[in-house]
Formats: sequence, C-alpha cells, structure tokens
Amino acid sequence: MSLAGIKRISIIGLGLIGGSLGLALKHSGLVGAEIVGYVRSRESSSNALARRIVDRTEMDMRLTVRGSQMVLIAVPPLAVEEVMQEIGGDLVPGSLVMDNTSTKTEVMQWADKHLPQTVNFVGGHPMAGKETSGLEVAEAGLFRDRTFCLVPSPRCSKASKDLAFELVKAVGAKPLLLTAAEHDFLVAGISHLPLVVATALVNATTQNPFWMGMSHLAASGYRDTTRLASQHPAMNRDICVTNRANILDWLDELQAKLQELRRLMASGSPEEIERVFQEAKKARDSWFEKYDRRSPA
Amino acid sequence: MSLAGIKRISIIGLGLIGGSLGLALKHSGLVGAEIVGYVRSRESSSNALARRIVDRTEMDMRLTVRGSQMVLIAVPPLAVEEVMQEIGGDLVPGSLVMDNTSTKTEVMQWADKHLPQTVNFVGGHPMAGKETSGLEVAEAGLFRDRTFCLVPSPRCSKASKDLAFELVKAVGAKPLLLTAAEHDFLVAGISHLPLVVATALVNATTQNPFWMGMSHLAASGYRDTTRLASQHPAMNRDICVTNRANILDWLDELQAKLQELRRLMASGSPEEIERVFQEAKKARDSWFEKYDRRSPA
Repeated sequence: MSLAGIKRISIIGLGLIGGSLGLALKHSGLVGAEIVGYVRSRESSSNALARRIVDRTEMDMRLTVRGSQMVLIAVPPLAVEEVMQEIGGDLVPGSLVMDNTSTKTEVMQWADKHLPQTVNFVGGHPMAGKETSGLEVAEAGLFRDRTFCLVPSPRCSKASKDLAFELVKAVGAKPLLLTAAEHDFLVAGISHLPLVVATALVNATTQNPFWMGMSHLAASGYRDTTRLASQHPAMNRDICVTNRANILDWLDELQAKLQELRRLMASGSPEEIERVFQEAKKARDSWFEKYDRRSPA
Repeated sequence: MSLAGIKRISIIGLGLIGGSLGLALKHSGLVGAEIVGYVRSRESSSNALARRIVDRTEMDMRLTVRGSQMVLIAVPPLAVEEVMQEIGGDLVPGSLVMDNTSTKTEVMQWADKHLPQTVNFVGGHPMAGKETSGLEVAEAGLFRDRTFCLVPSPRCSKASKDLAFELVKAVGAKPLLLTAAEHDFLVAGISHLPLVVATALVNATTQNPFWMGMSHLAASGYRDTTRLASQHPAMNRDICVTNRANILDWLDELQAKLQELRRLMASGSPEEIERVFQEAKKARDSWFEKYDRRSPA
C-alpha cells in the first residue's frame, strides 16, 4: 500500500511533533486520508481543529486508532509503552505503527512485547525540535530537509518500510535507516550530551551567589549554548532513563576533553591551548557548512 | 569635553568590534569628529573606506592616534600590550584611551605600565559578538541594547569617565561600571566557560570514530550548543591566557554539576533526574525572558 492509498491516519498526541506531523501531512498534498488525532482535553481538541492539524479528534485512544492503516505515536519516550499497551488490541492487521521519540532500544522492545504480530512497527526519530513544546508551536515546515531516523522492527514488512520512507519524504524530511543500537549511540553524542552539558552549564552559573550580577552580562553566546536546557524536563528525564548507558559513555568522553583543556590552561603553552581551539573551529565550521547548505532555514 | 566637542577619534584595528564601533558612531548622528582607522593592509583600507566605517585610514599606528582626543583599541587581548607600547608616546595629553577586549585585569596593568600618566584609560568590554570575525561582518547595530562593561583606571578623570559613558550610549549600548576583578570573574562564568564547554563538546563528538555517521543527525541543538567553538582560535587562546584562574574555577563548578548529573543518571531515580532539568529550565527561562525583552533582535 502506498501513502496515497491510505484512508485513515491516526496521531496519538498532538504536541510539537504530533501537531507538526499533522500539519506537514496536510500541507504535502500527498495524503488523501482522514487524519484523526488523540487529545486529552476539549481545549486541545478545539485548538487542533481550529488550526486544521487533524480532521477529527478523539479523547479515547482506542477509538482513535480504529480503522487506521497508519498510527503515529507522538508522546514522550516513557509514555510510549503505555500507549502501545492501550492500543494493541485495536490495531488494524497489516497497519504501520511508528513512534517519534529520541531513543530507540527500549521502544523496539516494547513494540515487540505489546503490539500484535500482525502489525508492522518502525521506530522513528525526526531530527528536529524546539526548546518550546506544545501544539501552539507546531509547524508544517518543522521536518523540512531534516534527517528522519527509521529503525524497522525485525518482522516489519518490506511494504511497511517503504510506506515509512514515503511518509518521511511527504513531511519534507530525509529518511535514514539505522539499527536501534546505532541510533541510540549516535544520538547520545550529538543530541543528549549537548542537552546534559547545557543543563550543567545553566545550573553552574545560575546557582552561583553572583548570578544576579552575571545575568546582565550574559548575551547571545550564553543564550545559544544553554538553549537546550529550556527543553521539557519530563522529556529530558525520559531521554536519560532510556538511553542511560550511552549518555554516560559520552559524558566520560566530554569530561576527558574538559580535563585536557583544564590541564593545558593550568600548565600548557599558549600555542597548545590555541591548537585545541583550532581543531574545534575547523571541525565545527566544516560540519556547519554542510548543515547550513542542507537546511538554509 | 563632551562627545559632540571631539574633533578626532581613532580606532586601532578594524575587525568585527572596531568596524562596528566606527559604523555605530557614524550612524549615531552624535559625532562630528573625524574618525581615523588603523589598518594593516591596502585591502582593509579600501574595504573600510568603501563601507564608510571611517573617514580616513592609516597604516602607521602612531600616525593614526596623533591629534585624537579619543583612542579606541580594538585588537585581540594579547595584542593590546604591544599597541599601548607603540602609541604611548603619541597620545594627546588629557585624551581618553579605551580597549575593547574580554578580560580586564591584565589590560589595566598594561595601561598603568605603558601609557603616559597624562592620558585617561578606561577598560571596555562590549557584551556583543559573533562567531565570525572581520570587517565584513561589522554592523552598526552590534551593540544595540547590549551591556558595555567599563573599568576606569584609578587615575582616570571624572570628565573622561563621563565621556566613556557617552560613547557607550552613542553606540546604543548600556554602560555598566565594574572593577577589573569583578568583570573577569563574572565574564569567565557567562562567556568563557560556555566557550570552553562548546569547544570540548565539539572535540568529543567530531574526534569520535563514528563522527561521519553522527554528523548527519546533528541538527539545531548541536548547532547552537557548539556555536562558540567557531570563534577565532587566537582570541580564545588570549582569553584563556589572560583569565586563566577564573576560568579554571568555573570549570570546577561545571564539572561538579556534570558529576552530580552523572551520579543521578547512574543510580538516581527518574524524579531526581527530572528535578535537575526542572531547576535548569526554570532558571534559564527566567533569564531568557529578561534578556529577550532587553534585546528583541
């Protein structure tokens, strides 16, 4: 089955990611399906319908997925298991189920445990986000030109894998096939480590007795380096809990680099110190040049 | 003497800061003075004149300052001492001399050592910058609504302090009076520590054998957290060398926070982990709200 042939898509959770998926699918012009959204309040329902993020809302999760050939789960990592337990009995045989969270190893285990063998699960992770959350900040262009990681479960059909690729392209993103272990290791380095570092940086500075004086001096450098610390704390907690071992390994790598810089600053020559900054600038500039070309926004 | 009465202002170094000072002064409409810029190449001279950053350029530093009632030094921290030695004999008695670098303790000592007692030195540090450098990225609005730290030397006259305040306001910034020790401690926390952290983060990730795979997943979170690592390596080196002790103290504070997070991730409860993220989000959001109101750009 191709994306165009699908009659109903359901989205569980209409926050930043779920809401942006709805908007992106509707704006793509590639989807004729009815899009049904699961919400937890009448207010969210009104907002979602007013912004035309979905065609219909449900406040019962099992009713939401009924008759859907595609189910997109867009709740925080630790809530995914409960959603799977809840909807398992109402999924259409042969349908594609995808999550959209930032860690994959546990999610794949939960899918194996709770979803019927008749459905096809693909773990998903769009490399896009904001430090703000909620339906209000959802936007159709959130995934444009971004990498969208896909981790198909072992028993996922070829057709469902193809469908997942089609979906990713329909929302403007670029699919990247990975195993759960690969994904969680790589993402721990480029996404979870920066989050932990930004958080430690905010706590080290704002908990200092002189913070009031400092706060007036903090400018765009501080703003950008600490941006991730403004992400949703419950999501951050879930990330840490589900990707613990990888993040700890990366934290050790970072501490080693900090120790190296510390040692050079304490007793190295100006040339040695400069070399570390040169390495970093060269590597970061070369990454940024490619990134910027890929996503000019 | 007030800013309006000044006949000649010279700027030593027309990079991002020096160039932006020239542009901001010209755009302010408050300055009738001739602005003379010291450049090291004919190319910089043509660029500076073409962009109307200064009225005249000189390739001899001593000629540049001759007859100036105000001399603005805009070179990297470790180059300031040499500039002071070079221009000391050509400064106009009673004139105001200001630097614009990110550390102040050593600069104040150099001024005391190399500048004649007849001139008034004020250490300056505009809390504005970019990760890119050079005349090309200079802009008139760089200092708008930003804090501009001022550290007057002990023998600086009241009139020259007032003039420095006037200058800061003319370029759109907000003057903040500090001692050199206060300045260097506070700035180490909100500016130099983030730089060191961003650099360690880039080196930890890009020097990992799996970087090629990771680089495709890195998105806006990685981009922002690492932005400062793209700053000029020689400037970063100078910052580290001139503000060593303060940065090392702050690095210890950061490592303590990283260790705390590490310990909680290894053996804490999800609630304890979440609490650390909640603290950081609350503190960062509350700072950002004020910052954003102050500088909407």
